[in-house]
Formats: sequence, structure tokens, C-alpha cells
Amino acid sequence: MKCRRCGAQAAIEVRRHNAAFCEGCFVHHVQESVSRAIRSHRMFGHRDRVLVAVSGGKDSLGLWDALLELGYQATGLYLGLGIGEYSDRSGQVTRDFAAGQGAELIEVDLRERYGYDIPTGGRKGSRSTCAVCGLSKRYVFNREAVDHGFDVVATGHNLDDEAATLLGNTLRWQTEYIARQFPVLPKREGMVRKVKPLYRLSELETAAYAFLRGIDYIVEECPLVAGNTQLKYKDAMNALEAGSPGTKAQFYLGFVDRGAELFRSEDTAELAPCEQCGQPTTGRFCAFCRARAQVLGERLGRPEGDVDDDAQTAGELSEEVLPVEMYGRALSRRGP
Amino acid sequence: MKCRRCGAQAAIEVRRHNAAFCEGCFVHHVQESVSRAIRSHRMFGHRDRVLVAVSGGKDSLGLWDALLELGYQATGLYLGLGIGEYSDRSGQVTRDFAAGQGAELIEVDLRERYGYDIPTGGRKGSRSTCAVCGLSKRYVFNREAVDHGFDVVATGHNLDDEAATLLGNTLRWQTEYIARQFPVLPKREGMVRKVKPLYRLSELETAAYAFLRGIDYIVEECPLVAGNTQLKYKDAMNALEAGSPGTKAQFYLGFVDRGAELFRSEDTAELAPCEQCGQPTTGRFCAFCRARAQVLGERLGRPEGDVDDDAQTAGELSEEVLPVEMYGRALSRRGP
Repeated sequence: MKCRRCGAQAAIEVRRHNAAFCEGCFVHHVQESVSRAIRSHRMFGHRDRVLVAVSGGKDSLGLWDALLELGYQATGLYLGLGIGEYSDRSGQVTRDFAAGQGAELIEVDLRERYGYDIPTGGRKGSRSTCAVCGLSKRYVFNREAVDHGFDVVATGHNLDDEAATLLGNTLRWQTEYIARQFPVLPKREGMVRKVKPLYRLSELETAAYAFLRGIDYIVEECPLVAGNTQLKYKDAMNALEAGSPGTKAQFYLGFVDRGAELFRSEDTAELAPCEQCGQPTTGRFCAFCRARAQVLGERLGRPEGDVDDDAQTAGELSEEVLPVEMYGRALSRRGP
Repeated sequence: MKCRRCGAQAAIEVRRHNAAFCEGCFVHHVQESVSRAIRSHRMFGHRDRVLVAVSGGKDSLGLWDALLELGYQATGLYLGLGIGEYSDRSGQVTRDFAAGQGAELIEVDLRERYGYDIPTGGRKGSRSTCAVCGLSKRYVFNREAVDHGFDVVATGHNLDDEAATLLGNTLRWQTEYIARQFPVLPKREGMVRKVKPLYRLSELETAAYAFLRGIDYIVEECPLVAGNTQLKYKDAMNALEAGSPGTKAQFYLGFVDRGAELFRSEDTAELAPCEQCGQPTTGRFCAFCRARAQVLGERLGRPEGDVDDDAQTAGELSEEVLPVEMYGRALSRRGP
């Protein structure tokens, strides 16, 4: 097979595009896809300061790499989750990458800054580990971006992530979540813009990109993710993809092109500052402050009897964007 | 386990409802579900004349049985598809059922009335067998209902059928089809109301009902259905259901409750009488007349060059309700 772009011997086939590339042109193909995503959705420009949420995995490091290659002002943000050796190594590969690129990296350690780590957060309180992790990340990403004056937060969600999440949200017709699964979420009161420049690239493509670019990334899954509901949706999408290559892309990109507009009116949450931390929330206290108070055994300034119970936690889930990480115990527990 | 309704020894467990029933109460449970579906969506009343599309399978015969038991005026409509022994036997069980119930049965033979059978229709022309079958059924059901003055056509689509079809339509964001997947389609110019009273019952429930009611139905699948795309969606839904019992119900019933309204504006087709047969269509000639002319090698009165080509057939698919039967070769061929 020949490279679609330069005609040399191809090294990588992208079945969905019915195309093959040599190594150099594959790297170009990935960067072009990122660039097109950014431009077609006006995610940000070269003058904007972009905060890239990096976990040390192939997607987020690959995204950071591509943004730097494309000449964007991309600063990394690494959140230390305190998940033992897994976190130690992800922090290390992230620091090494930043040093190698001469790129700016902001580090926040959850325990140092907020008094708990993810394993503790999952054990204490009413939320699953994945739920605590997801809401901690969303909170810290936004707060750091606001505090440091960034214009936009970019995350490394790829096509497989988005298709699986969309499948889960659609199977439950969680129309508010679906409304917020667009690759760009505009800036709102106290919330910076959120973008997903890898949304057109499959997991295979982002993995091949990281490999070809010589990025040293952490390969293993988070050790706490076992049984994560998200994985079931990935399995289902993979089975459908195997039978009809292109199903994932058709599903998520079709949503972006034709589906999303039908759900726009469902994103109705009104935001006001959390009474504890000032970050935007739909209630009196934000989900992060409520979760943190529960984990630390502290009380938020609230009237008697207003406890953070399971019902409130379940309600809160419907007010939040549901990232990959949030499909944990909490949601399976709410099953039919 | 005890029967939820009468406390006797249970014979059948309905996991999704976390309930079990004795045989008698299970039959009651199914009839109640049909009755509730009919009443909650005002599908029809006891004074309406209902035409039940019966294939000889468990779903349509079970539906007919339940409607008669519930005291509705339900006439059967059997369409002879000419699929060899399979059709011979389905016709026979249908006639036997009607005779046993003393119920009125209308029979239409596709070859006698319209000059072709399904195997021929699938071999000739540009449509898949399943596509020709689906559009022939929809056409004949509506036409017979109109010609005989029925108020409504009822079909035996169950929860598994609807969930799988909805999954397929959603994976492709075929918003017009999704808009028409509601359990009731209102009467329009030249189209009688269409209803699916079994939409709350799983395939297991309809099979158990037919068995317990002693209905002799044709068990085997249509011999022409092999490779039908619909089956892949059923497999995917079954895998998800196995991991999280209730997923199918949550998906389709959630659509009915919360999703469908968002798609209502997508059902925009404007209908006018077909110049050949007078039945409603979005074009000059209806899909049935075009397909039939193609199969018979006849010409419709059309200008030179206006041939029924593949592009037109593909376009037509997007103007039509997509029932189970239409997911055939034609659609897979359009894949990415």
C-alpha cells in the first residue's frame, strides 16, 4: 500500500478513511486533523493562551505535542491524583515531556492543595472513585485556568471516548449531558471555554501519533478504573465498529453535524457562585465543595438537616458535564 | 419466588421489573401492558376498527390475541410474501389462529395483487430484499386500511425491535427516522394512524405470552434475513442489556418520555398523492410504485432520463419510516 499523501511505502492504514500513510505523512495527518478541528469550531487562535489538561497518557501528551507543533501557546496542567505509583509515573512522564519541549507546566497536587487524594475520596463519602476523580479534575482545570488567566482549557478526549460517552448518555437520554458533549463549550459566568481538539481522531490514531512522535507516555489504565461503566460502552462501540468500520465516526461526527443542535435547548443550567469557593455552580455549594466537605468530614455553612445525602449526589450528577471518568459506581447504582 | 400479583408460586421472572408472576398473572401483566400503552398514547378506543398486521410470528399473533382479549375490534391483515415454505406456513398459522378465535382476517397475496413476490423483488431492481419487503408491507398495510375504512394499523413491534432500530437510527443520527419512531404516528393525508402497542414488552415477554396463551406461531426467522444489519444492533443491545439489565427499556422508553419531543421538528416530509396509485408520497411517484415498476421492468409515466437509479433509491430511504425489515443490503451499502 502507498501513502495517500506522498506515494511512498505506507506504514499505517486508517481503515475508516480508507487511506494509508507513511510515518511522516501520518504525523502530518494527525496534526492537520487537530488543526482543522480547532479552526472549524473556532476553538482558539494563536494569540490565545491554552491550558492543556495532561494526565501523562497518549491522548493528552499527544494533544500538547500537536498544539506546540502547530505553534499554539499551550501550557500543561498536571493534577496529582495521589493514586500511588500510577500517579508517580504519570507525573514523571509529564514533567519529562515538558522539559524536553521547554514547555510551561503547572502542577497541582490534590492532597496538598485540597486535603484529599482520589483513593481516599472514593472510599469516603457517597460518590464513586471515578465520580470524585471526574469532578475534582473539572473543578481544578477550570479554577486554574481562571486563576491564571487562560482563555481556554483543552482536553485530550478522542473519538472513541466521545462516541462511548455519547452512547452512554443517549442510552439514558440524558439530554443535558448530550447537549454538553459538543467539542466546544463556550465560556460562561466563571467558566472558561472547554475544547476537545482530538475529537476527530480515533484511539488508534492518537496512540500511533504518540508512538511515532517518540512521546514517552504512561500506557497502563488507571488501576481504579476496573468495572467502569464507560468501558462497557467502549466494548459495544468496538463490536459495532468491527462489523461496520466507521460506525464510531459516523455516530459522534454525525452528532456534531446534525444531532447536537436538537439538544442545544436542553443545556439550561443557571450558574451562580458557590458560597464556599466562588466557582460557578447550579446550587448553593458546588459539587466539588460538597464532595470535599464530605470526604474531609467537614460541614459547609448550611442549615440543619441539609446533608449531602445520596439523593442530592444523584441530583448533582444531572447538573454536571459527564466526562469519561464519571461513569463509575454512582451511576451503575442508579440503574433501572 | 412468589407471584407479585397473587402470591402463588411464580413461573416467570421479569428481571427488568424485578418481578415474577405465575402463569395466569403473567398473561394479565402482558395484557395490562398492552392496555396501558393503548390508553396512555390514545392509540385507539373500543369503537375504533383496528387492522392488525399479522405475519404469523409470536409478536403479531400475540398482539392480535391481546387486542381481542381486551375487547377491541381487531381484524387481521396477512400479506403473502411468497417466500416459499416459510410463507406457506406463516399463512397457515395465521388462518388457524383467526379461525380458532372466530376473528376476521383479510388476506393479500403480493404476487396475485401486485405481480411480484419478495424473492423476485430482492433479485431484480436496486433494492435489497429487506428493503423491498419493508416498503411492500408499509404500502399494503396502509392501502388496505384506507380501502377498508380502518381507523388505525397496529403492528407487533416489541421493545427489542424498537430499541435496536433506535440504536441504528441514532448511530447514524437519522433524525427524520428517529422522529417517526414514536409508538404512535398520527393520521395524515392518505395515511391512517400507525401504532405499536407492544412497545413496552420485551421479546422474551411476547414469546412467553404466545406460549402461555397456546398460540401456534411460526418460530423460525425469515430465511432471507441473514446478514440483516438490524441483527447487529440487536446483538449490541443484548450485550449491553446483559451487563446492565434494563438498558433496552431505559433507552427506548426514555426516548418516548424525553427524547422524542426533541426530534419532532425533524419529521418534515410533505405528502402528495402518487401519480401512479394515489397513495401519499413525498415525490411524484411513491417508493412502492417505483420499486414495483423496476421489478416488473415497467416504466412509470416519467420524462426521459428520469430513471430509478441507486441515488434515487438511497434518497427515498430518507423519506420513509424505517421498520425492522428495511435494514438490509441497501443501507449497509451506503456505509462509510
